[in-house]
Amino acid sequence: MKVGFIGLGAMGIAMARNLLRAGHEVTVWNRSPEPAQSLAGEGAKVASSPVEVVAAEAVVTMLANDAAVKSVFLDGGALDQMSKTTIHVNCATISVALAQDLTERHRARGLAYVAAPVFGRPDVAAARQLNIVVAGPAQAIETIRPLLDAMGQKTWPVGEEPFQANVVKIGGNLMIASAIEAMAEVASLGVAHGLDPAAMLNIYTSTLFACRAYQSYSGGIAARRYEPAGFKLELGLKDVRLALAAGDATNVSLPFGSALRDAMMSAVAAGDGHKDWSALGDVALRRSGLVSD
Amino acid sequence: MKVGFIGLGAMGIAMARNLLRAGHEVTVWNRSPEPAQSLAGEGAKVASSPVEVVAAEAVVTMLANDAAVKSVFLDGGALDQMSKTTIHVNCATISVALAQDLTERHRARGLAYVAAPVFGRPDVAAARQLNIVVAGPAQAIETIRPLLDAMGQKTWPVGEEPFQANVVKIGGNLMIASAIEAMAEVASLGVAHGLDPAAMLNIYTSTLFACRAYQSYSGGIAARRYEPAGFKLELGLKDVRLALAAGDATNVSLPFGSALRDAMMSAVAAGDGHKDWSALGDVALRRSGLVSD
Amino acid sequence: MKVGFIGLGAMGIAMARNLLRAGHEVTVWNRSPEPAQSLAGEGAKVASSPVEVVAAEAVVTMLANDAAVKSVFLDGGALDQMSKTTIHVNCATISVALAQDLTERHRARGLAYVAAPVFGRPDVAAARQLNIVVAGPAQAIETIRPLLDAMGQKTWPVGEEPFQANVVKIGGNLMIASAIEAMAEVASLGVAHGLDPAAMLNIYTSTLFACRAYQSYSGGIAARRYEPAGFKLELGLKDVRLALAAGDATNVSLPFGSALRDAMMSAVAAGDGHKDWSALGDVALRRSGLVSD
Amino acid sequence: MKVGFIGLGAMGIAMARNLLRAGHEVTVWNRSPEPAQSLAGEGAKVASSPVEVVAAEAVVTMLANDAAVKSVFLDGGALDQMSKTTIHVNCATISVALAQDLTERHRARGLAYVAAPVFGRPDVAAARQLNIVVAGPAQAIETIRPLLDAMGQKTWPVGEEPFQANVVKIGGNLMIASAIEAMAEVASLGVAHGLDPAAMLNIYTSTLFACRAYQSYSGGIAARRYEPAGFKLELGLKDVRLALAAGDATNVSLPFGSALRDAMMSAVAAGDGHKDWSALGDVALRRSGLVSD
Repeated sequence: MKVGFIGLGAMGIAMARNLLRAGHEVTVWNRSPEPAQSLAGEGAKVASSPVEVVAAEAVVTMLANDAAVKSVFLDGGALDQMSKTTIHVNCATISVALAQDLTERHRARGLAYVAAPVFGRPDVAAARQLNIVVAGPAQAIETIRPLLDAMGQKTWPVGEEPFQANVVKIGGNLMIASAIEAMAEVASLGVAHGLDPAAMLNIYTSTLFACRAYQSYSGGIAARRYEPAGFKLELGLKDVRLALAAGDATNVSLPFGSALRDAMMSAVAAGDGHKDWSALGDVALRRSGLVSD
Repeated sequence: MKVGFIGLGAMGIAMARNLLRAGHEVTVWNRSPEPAQSLAGEGAKVASSPVEVVAAEAVVTMLANDAAVKSVFLDGGALDQMSKTTIHVNCATISVALAQDLTERHRARGLAYVAAPVFGRPDVAAARQLNIVVAGPAQAIETIRPLLDAMGQKTWPVGEEPFQANVVKIGGNLMIASAIEAMAEVASLGVAHGLDPAAMLNIYTSTLFACRAYQSYSGGIAARRYEPAGFKLELGLKDVRLALAAGDATNVSLPFGSALRDAMMSAVAAGDGHKDWSALGDVALRRSGLVSD
Repeated sequence: MKVGFIGLGAMGIAMARNLLRAGHEVTVWNRSPEPAQSLAGEGAKVASSPVEVVAAEAVVTMLANDAAVKSVFLDGGALDQMSKTTIHVNCATISVALAQDLTERHRARGLAYVAAPVFGRPDVAAARQLNIVVAGPAQAIETIRPLLDAMGQKTWPVGEEPFQANVVKIGGNLMIASAIEAMAEVASLGVAHGLDPAAMLNIYTSTLFACRAYQSYSGGIAARRYEPAGFKLELGLKDVRLALAAGDATNVSLPFGSALRDAMMSAVAAGDGHKDWSALGDVALRRSGLVSD
Repeated sequence: MKVGFIGLGAMGIAMARNLLRAGHEVTVWNRSPEPAQSLAGEGAKVASSPVEVVAAEAVVTMLANDAAVKSVFLDGGALDQMSKTTIHVNCATISVALAQDLTERHRARGLAYVAAPVFGRPDVAAARQLNIVVAGPAQAIETIRPLLDAMGQKTWPVGEEPFQANVVKIGGNLMIASAIEAMAEVASLGVAHGLDPAAMLNIYTSTLFACRAYQSYSGGIAARRYEPAGFKLELGLKDVRLALAAGDATNVSLPFGSALRDAMMSAVAAGDGHKDWSALGDVALRRSGLVSD
């Protein structure tokens, strides 16, 4: 397919590369030019503005957050330049409210909008092992299916309304954060009782909790090793806030979400916002006086 | 080995049976006589009081809670009748405070006390697939190791102080309850946004959360099917309170624990205490007005 | 002084009337024309658009919320029409973020901006008994002081930055909501123990808590009488969210704020958003199973 | 009346002295002898054991906590020595559970038991300005009314079941703690926005919150002056736990109570347990990174 691709961060570049490898004709754009140049050597065309990218069967966007989407896609004029036959596939983790707003704006112009947020980090994206949650008009999803197949190991359709995919993504991140906090609390209880947190968490992650969400973070929590960050705490806080905002809009209380928000703000206040979000482990230790720094 | 066994509930009877099958000489006692009679047919001797059971190399206790341990083992006189060479292996999920008290009482009498709480339900116990967390004097653990091997698939030693095994067990149950609540919150967010909670939770439990703690409960939460109870919510609440009490004693705050306590009390107040603890799913739906019953 | 006045809701009309009574020359505007006509009979000039109102020494705005301020004052063009000598006195309860944005926009145009949110309901406003919190450039405050004196019993200056007055107002509302929730929790504890909540709360409000924030709500909570609303719960929720947002922007956790948000959303989900915010009393009773409706 | 008095701490000594001044015949006992000797000079008889004190028309106990009551009154044998006509007036702040247990034990012996916990600190007790909450059999209360009148400014009867007075006392302390935390949160929000917390809190305590519960603590919070302690934070934590325990027994969730427990434990963990409970102010500042010590 002829595909435009906007947003070549660590995730986006890996995803665009997999589109190229699958034989798609990809035109890319990124705010800073380096990543685009790197892909040029692998067959991508490089556009000089987002507007040039949207003249394609589909345009995939993988921007950092709500602000970037608004800046590039709305204020930057990309939306206004899309042809009626182009399908917008938005892979970013954005707010439900923005997803709803984008859906309306596309509809008003007769354009197809598909939300396709992904689970997985850059190395997972590079290995084409992403899990992609997708929502939008069935016909549009069918059309862009080859793109999703080229970028991930599996696609999970969840509904006709694009924002529904964002709810699933946001909910998933809330669950990961909850898994981290649960380990942090239990580890602090263990430390207070003279236990080795590594041995303690190992029991859980070898049995009932033998899954990636736990195994990815238990070692770091036990060792208080939060750098380099796999996923920065300040980004995790952003995502928890997206969940709380989605709850706010529908009167859904999220007690764990509120507790996470407070703990993560405490981490940021302590200067740990740039560390991995498993630095929640230190928040738990600090509030119980088990570490002083 | 010559073993006494006290407490033949659904868990205890399965564990005692596995001791018999492994060739140990087991004398059993239970408050109500039926389970003991049933084991008699499989080779167990049946004692008429707890006191008769403790004349053994080891006595394994699997009682329901703190009150039962106090009633049978302390007030009932079993402790006073133990010979110096008998090792007490307490498999019950009890409070850290009682574990510490029992340790002191055994020490004062020159007796060995080992805590060996287990992860797993009756069917897991029957299949000899329990994970057993053990703490106590190394020599005593070494001696009773064949008993643990006969009852579980794996033994996890965590320390010299018996209460440390109880902390690991209590912490593990807090983690399971947290996993349930996280799914309950996210599912309610999904329902409020028109998603099918079964499809939504399936994505998580097929990928990052592909482990037993989640897979055991996601289906029930999605279908609002909380009976029959695998583990009653009121017992889960008891265990969450054990975690909070252990935190209270060491100034360790457990924000998730507090949130769980409140949600579980709300479930009990709504008449759901006897249902499975995944009935936290309904607490989340009710507080957001998504169901009215 | 020559004063423009925008926003004649229940609060605004009482405040504008007091300006007229103090001899100021007042030109008014309101989205719906009736309140303006009513003031015309008392000497006010009636403008046909917000833009006409700002040709004055000062313009006082008393709009409902952030959206109304943006719609009328920013999008409606009032700001653009202000002369360099006009001082904007914003009495509305708005977000800290909007206060900061408005301050910048005024500064960029060389205009003076003063925040002057008020404590008190319409009857208090009518009686000229408002407490007015004020922040902004000292010179501007000095100039508009006669207006504040005409509208309230006392003015409380808190700083040079306008948003600081909004923080004080938002914080005050968080404190009132906290007072209500504290009474709601304690009353539910009393009810669960067979106490008469009216007698119970009366002890507190006659002694340590003999102040308006408590005495205004204790009777309604005890009697479960939440209508007519003195201040609607959904507006209280809006203000709690303003506090949480101000905390979000500065990494300040507000555990009471989070608890309030959840309880208030639960009230809205139960259909009580239009009732008085003391309907938190019913949230407490419901979550403990003490009432079923 | 002929009165026995047990427990001469700072509160008890002032209360016993007021009984003497009102002309009652008072026999006192205290664990450490000094306070009793001091009262001897004012006309009190000094007993050498609690058992000697209960031979009276009424015995007033003012012990520190549940443990002291159990130790002195139950294990110490005082209850067993009471004559059928003696009325026990327990002024201590104890748990609802112990109040219920004491009531049963007295009933089983045909003895009258009255709970009469007090609001007020030692200086208030000395000035005979206590507010006394009372519950128990109407006849018994009528009989001991002169004693309550001699010790406090006002007596507040709340029910026939003694524990009900304890619920009112515990609830009142939860409300005071909530008032402190509300000020702590709002002050930290103010500090984060450059406000002077003293000026900010002064606005509230001069208007809507012009009552003792707030005015007693606002200055200390604003100045971060928590010593000397008027009421130690660790005692406040004990009382918050009494409230949570009363809620636990009746399925009443207390979200503010849980938040207070966590914040107070954090204070204790930081070494502030011996400071005034308004040291919650520092917990709020620390968790937001606004102070580092």
